[in-house]
Parts: sequence; C-alpha cells; structure tokens
Amino acid sequence: MNPMAEQWNEKIRTANAHVHDMLSGLGREIYFPKEGILSQSAEATTHAKKYNATIGIATENGGPMHLNVIQDKLSAYSPKDLYGYAPPAGKPELRAAWREKMIRENPSLEGKAFGNPITTNALTHGLSIVADLFADSGDAVVYPDKNWENYELTFGIRRGAKIVNYELFDADMRFNAPAFRRALLEQKEAGKAIVPLNFPNNPTGYTPSVAEGEEIVSVLVEAAEAGINLVVVTDDAYFGLFFEDSLHESLFGKLAGLHPRILPIKIDGATKEEFVWGFRVGFITYASDDADVLTALEQKTMGIIRATISSGPHPSQTFVLDALKSPEFEAQKQEKFLIMKGRANKVKALLDSGKYEGVWTYYPFNSGYFMCLKLNPGIPAEALRQRLLHEYGVGTIALGETDLRIAFSCIAEEHLEDLFDLVYRGAQEIGQ
Amino acid sequence: MNPMAEQWNEKIRTANAHVHDMLSGLGREIYFPKEGILSQSAEATTHAKKYNATIGIATENGGPMHLNVIQDKLSAYSPKDLYGYAPPAGKPELRAAWREKMIRENPSLEGKAFGNPITTNALTHGLSIVADLFADSGDAVVYPDKNWENYELTFGIRRGAKIVNYELFDADMRFNAPAFRRALLEQKEAGKAIVPLNFPNNPTGYTPSVAEGEEIVSVLVEAAEAGINLVVVTDDAYFGLFFEDSLHESLFGKLAGLHPRILPIKIDGATKEEFVWGFRVGFITYASDDADVLTALEQKTMGIIRATISSGPHPSQTFVLDALKSPEFEAQKQEKFLIMKGRANKVKALLDSGKYEGVWTYYPFNSGYFMCLKLNPGIPAEALRQRLLHEYGVGTIALGETDLRIAFSCIAEEHLEDLFDLVYRGAQEIGQ
Repeated sequence: MNPMAEQWNEKIRTANAHVHDMLSGLGREIYFPKEGILSQSAEATTHAKKYNATIGIATENGGPMHLNVIQDKLSAYSPKDLYGYAPPAGKPELRAAWREKMIRENPSLEGKAFGNPITTNALTHGLSIVADLFADSGDAVVYPDKNWENYELTFGIRRGAKIVNYELFDADMRFNAPAFRRALLEQKEAGKAIVPLNFPNNPTGYTPSVAEGEEIVSVLVEAAEAGINLVVVTDDAYFGLFFEDSLHESLFGKLAGLHPRILPIKIDGATKEEFVWGFRVGFITYASDDADVLTALEQKTMGIIRATISSGPHPSQTFVLDALKSPEFEAQKQEKFLIMKGRANKVKALLDSGKYEGVWTYYPFNSGYFMCLKLNPGIPAEALRQRLLHEYGVGTIALGETDLRIAFSCIAEEHLEDLFDLVYRGAQEIGQ
Repeated sequence: MNPMAEQWNEKIRTANAHVHDMLSGLGREIYFPKEGILSQSAEATTHAKKYNATIGIATENGGPMHLNVIQDKLSAYSPKDLYGYAPPAGKPELRAAWREKMIRENPSLEGKAFGNPITTNALTHGLSIVADLFADSGDAVVYPDKNWENYELTFGIRRGAKIVNYELFDADMRFNAPAFRRALLEQKEAGKAIVPLNFPNNPTGYTPSVAEGEEIVSVLVEAAEAGINLVVVTDDAYFGLFFEDSLHESLFGKLAGLHPRILPIKIDGATKEEFVWGFRVGFITYASDDADVLTALEQKTMGIIRATISSGPHPSQTFVLDALKSPEFEAQKQEKFLIMKGRANKVKALLDSGKYEGVWTYYPFNSGYFMCLKLNPGIPAEALRQRLLHEYGVGTIALGETDLRIAFSCIAEEHLEDLFDLVYRGAQEIGQ
C-alpha cells in the first residue's frame, strides 16, 4: 500500500476505528498524491514569482490562452474563471459559499463538526464516490423499494454491493419504520451497511414528517448500538422543495455527531435546487467530530476524483458561485419555488377532489418534482403508460407493476387538470 | 448477470471473441438500462406531443426553468443549450462535429470502421472508462518510464492493474522499440495487455517520427500474433501541437482494422487542443470492423458514465460545439498554435546554442506543452527544483532523480532565454 494512503488510514483508525472498518479496499488504497505534479504546481503558485513553468495549461498576457470565438460570448466572466482547471476539490470560494448556505438552511447543523463540501460532477458523482470509498463486493446497501433506479448501477453493478430493499410505506401509507428497522438489523452479522436516505424521495415526492424523521434517527441509533457500522448517505438532490409541513431540513444535521458507528455523508448540489441540471455541480460533505477523520476523507475523496475525472467543470462552478453571490438570487429562487409549490398543491387538490375514483390511490407526496399513482389491480402500469403515450400524447414513467410516476415539475399549473383527466380516462379504458 | 449485459456480451463474443476476452469483470456486467427512466423519457420525447410528464427537470414557457441572474450573463446561448441534462453520451451535434474533425485531421482514418465519439468529462474520464471496462486486478498496463503520473491512480490503485514500464528512449535518445517489444511479449502467458500510447508525450513533449510510428505498429502486430489481446489506447491529449517533422496523426488511424486481437481506443478532447482545460470536454472512440462490437462498447460506455457522473457538463459542450462551428475558429486556433510553436522552437534554439554546457542534456521534444531536461549526475532534480523556486522564483517540476520538466506552454517567448539562464545558473550552483 502507498505510504501516504497508509498514513491517512492510520489517522482514521486512531480517531475512529469504526470509520476505518467502513472503508472499502479501494477506500483504503486511494490517496491524493502529495509529492506529484499537482502539489509541485501548488507550491510554485505560491513561490514562483518570476516564472512559473509548471503549469499544464498555455498562458498568454498573464492569463489562460483562449479563443475569442468563445470569450466574446462569455464576456460577463473573466478568462481566469472559465478556462483553467478548477481544483480537484472545487473552487474554494464556491465550497465556502455552499457551506454557509448549508448551515443557514439546516439550523440543526449549528455547533456540529463537519467538513468543507467537496465539489463533485453533481449528485451521481457524489454517490459513486461513496460507492468507491465504502462499498466492497457483498456489502449491503439498504434503501426503500421506491427508489431512483441508478443506485442499482452505482452500488450494485459497479461495486458488487448487495441491494437490500425495504417497503417505504406501510399499509396506512406512513413511513414503514419497522420494515426499515428489520432490513438494518438483518445486517448485524455482517456488521456494516450503507444507507442512502433520499428525501424528497424520487420517485414519490415524499419527505418524512418531523416525527417520522425522529423514528428514522432512532432506528439508526439502535442498529449502531447493535454493532452495525453505518455509512448513512443523505441524498438531498431535491433539497428545499418542501411544500407542506414535513421535515424542512436534511437529516444530516441530526446525524452529525450522533454515534461513533454512524458516518453521516451529505450528497447535494445546485443541479435541482438552483435549476441548473446540466451544469453538473454537486457536493459531498462528511461529518465527524475528529478533524483527522475529516481531512483523511477529504484527501481520499480528492484522490478518487483525480483518478476518475481529475476535476469538475470550471465554467459551471463559476456560474453557480456568481448566482449564489447575486443579491437577486434568493428572490428569484423563491419565485420559482412558488411556481413548483403551486403545481404540487394543484395536483393534490385535484386528486382529493373526488373526481377520480376507482382506478388509483396515490403515495404520500409533499415535496420535490414528482408524485406516484398506485394503480388498482387490473391496470398494469406499463400498459397504461403505452396507452397514454400513443393514444393521448401524454408521457409518464411506469415503475414496476402498479406505479406511474408523474413529474409535476414540468407541467404548467393550468394544464394539470387536463393531464390528470387524460390519465384517468386512460386508466378507465385499461381497467374495463 | 443482467440479461441486457449478457446480450451485449454475446454480440461481442460472436463478432470478436478476443474483444470479449479483453473486458474486465465490470466491463462484462455493465449495461445501459434500456427499460429504465431514461429510455421511457426518450420515448416520451418522441411521442408525448401533448404533455410530457416524464422529465426530471422543471420547465416553464416551453423550456427549462432558470434564474435570470444566470441567464442574463449567458445570453449569447439559448437556455435549452445550458440548463437541461446533456445526454449521457454527449450532445449529438458535438459528437458528429468531433467525428468530422477527427477524420479531417487524421487522413489515415479514411475508409476505416470506427464508432461515434462518446463525450467524456475530459481525458482522465476517458482513461478511467477504459480502466473500468478493460482492467481487472493483475492485468498488465504497459507504458513508458516517462509518463503522466495519474495513470498510476487510474489503472493501478483504482483497478488493481499491474503497471509495467519500459524505457521510452534508448541510449541514442530514439524511441526504444526493443524495450517496448520486450515489455509487451512478457505478457504472453497472461495473454492480455492494456497499452496507453501518449504522443505528444507528457512530460517529454516527444512524438515519434513516421518511421518510429511504423515500428510501434509492427511491435503491436507481433505481440497480437503471439496471442496477446491488446487494448491499445491512444491518449491524444496534446493532439495537433506538432511543431516539427514527426507523426502528425494519431496512431489510432493506423491501428483501426489492423488485427482482431488489437482493440484501438482513441482518447482525446477539446481541453488542450482548443485551450479550454477547465471546460472538461473529451471523447472516447472505439475502432472495430464489426458494428455490433461498436454498439455494444458504446452501450457499456454509456452505462459506466451513467453509473459514475450520469452526464457531462452541458454548457461546456455547447461552448465547444459553438466554437467548432464558428467560421473564425480555425484561424484563431492557428494563431495560438503559432505562438506555441514559436515557444518550442525558441527553447530548442537556446538549448542547441552552446550556451548551456556541462550540466544537462535533454530528451527529444517536438510537440505538446513540455520539454524535459536530463540533469547530469550530481545535480539532483528535486534539489534543483527547490533552489530555483526559493532562490530565483522559478517554478519547475522534478520527476525522479534526474529529470526536470519545463512547460514552455506558459512562458512568453521573450522570457524563455532568461528562464533557461536561471535554470542553468541554478544547476551550476548545485553541481559545484
């Protein structure tokens, strides 16, 4: 093993042996080269006042060389904020701004010990970093039966982890804490589980109530007390889009500092929150009471970023940072939030109006982009999807046998009634 | 194994069993989900003429929802080319434009069968995709002793591959074909090798002559004839920056269609060629005479992109595409090329002028961003680097015991003589 990797492993082991045990084989092997080209370059940036001949880019007139056909259209930004490499961990000012935002929007983080957010190529990249650093072949990844399909590729196929699903809702359509508890405690013998918590949930648009959030936390503590090391990943992709009286914070705040066998990791980003999906700007943040653990995990994260994409897109990071700093940002974001909330409320009003009876129920939703219909027996989701698409020109997503996901995020409020009328008509026709 | 993965494997096996044998365990397991959310969304894009409620973004007024604080500064571009997700394989128009450019700049590709370039988060990402799809623990990755340090993390640490180095230059400072041949033929028992060919080379700035290129190709054919399956990766990061009478094409063109045991893969990108390092736009392209092999490898590549970053940055892809389409692009690029060539020529003239005697020789260079001094015995590279940095404010990169890398890409032509004078002075002082 590389001596630098071993050194960081030793620091983690000394501070918290459970976290050391959570690392995958790759998580132990990976490190960020301190004596390599990047760190010699960094040293030169500080000291090479006369000539810096270390830089792996071309320069001209004291800045990055660039073509005017590009710069002319991006003239609102300085070449230095567009063309050079962003650091592997992201632009420092962006990381600082995101950290401030995180604390402002999650008051439960006050006084908790957690690291500086590390910039990722958006949320999938954050999840794949977790998979690389923590998932070995056969490790259990415990998440609900209503989930984002890409977990399967990221954790299951790529890392050979074992997927363990539990039922998200009980018969009364509340969070199924007993099922969650059972799925976790089943991992007692293995002594390890990776637990993604995705709220607002994709595909259902569900966020737990405050009381349900407390139940989730207490199940996690019970599993940790039972000797299971838990890598708990809050997948906060749709953070902030809370339209009702649910939790309005990430559970990351409650989990930080909670138990030595719980390693909380926050995965979030600008993509959905700031309506910049294609920009690919996300973050991964670790919580630990030990500064050495935070530094070691940051180094290992930079190592895996260096080994997979080297760095994320610099223009995107600049655009997001600039937006976060703009005095009009909050007001403009609030305006869009109200549009989304209007759509969610309208969907709920329609579903509760009594006009659609006898073909479906629906899963709880109060947040995010989506809601899911649960179709009655005799109405297969895929058949309904096909009929809606080809008879009515209406696109929906079929999930499993019974569920139809509808993204209200992309339908104007005044069209929602017509949309659900058509879905209802299709369901009636299929059910006959 | 997933049935879709198995289906693609079977198509590869039927068309070329050697390519099937080259795949890693992960390479066999990975697939792009055809019946998942992305493909249902794609179907809806075609047929949902009335309402498309599949889209995982928010829309408004027929386009992606966005904040004016961002759009006001990017007004030269349409919101649809910035905010939505780019497809996992990249913007189709960008891929088509890059393919045209590839053929225009590599006439040896004429009439050869090769796939559509797939967009990556730049060159490291392309290399990490090769590592994921083709490198298993213990597989040999054969590349020269003068190399880019990140190969070690990407292939060695991440995938557990065995690094096999050969001497890039012989005693006469020519490409060391016998050493390359020996290193390859040593893999006969294992029957497999991954062979990155990085020309212009980082760190030396060396590109083989046409005759040396032919030698490299004939060594590869000899190894393939000996029964070794070869994943040959042309790492064309610095493509196009050819300042002398070397090869001016990627060896990918010569390798396409050459031998059933040779799978040529081209890794290239806009980052260095178009002076947009931080944009993170690269490409991976496979060559095969069989269309099924090309489709299967494209599907597997999309699968691994989906599982790691989901998609690359959309704004960057838009900016690069726009530049490629601009009528002024070629002329502006040529202008920058001439500046770089002026710097390279000046460095060579200085080194050959006779004014620096007795402290160093230099490795052949004729291309790219860099050149490497080979310091005489008694002048340790790290000691010289430190002295230059702290005494003279000059930043350089020390590589191993004897080599000092100097990036002429970032030093204006009129400063090069002063720079080398200082390096010479430092070397004399160290050597005393």
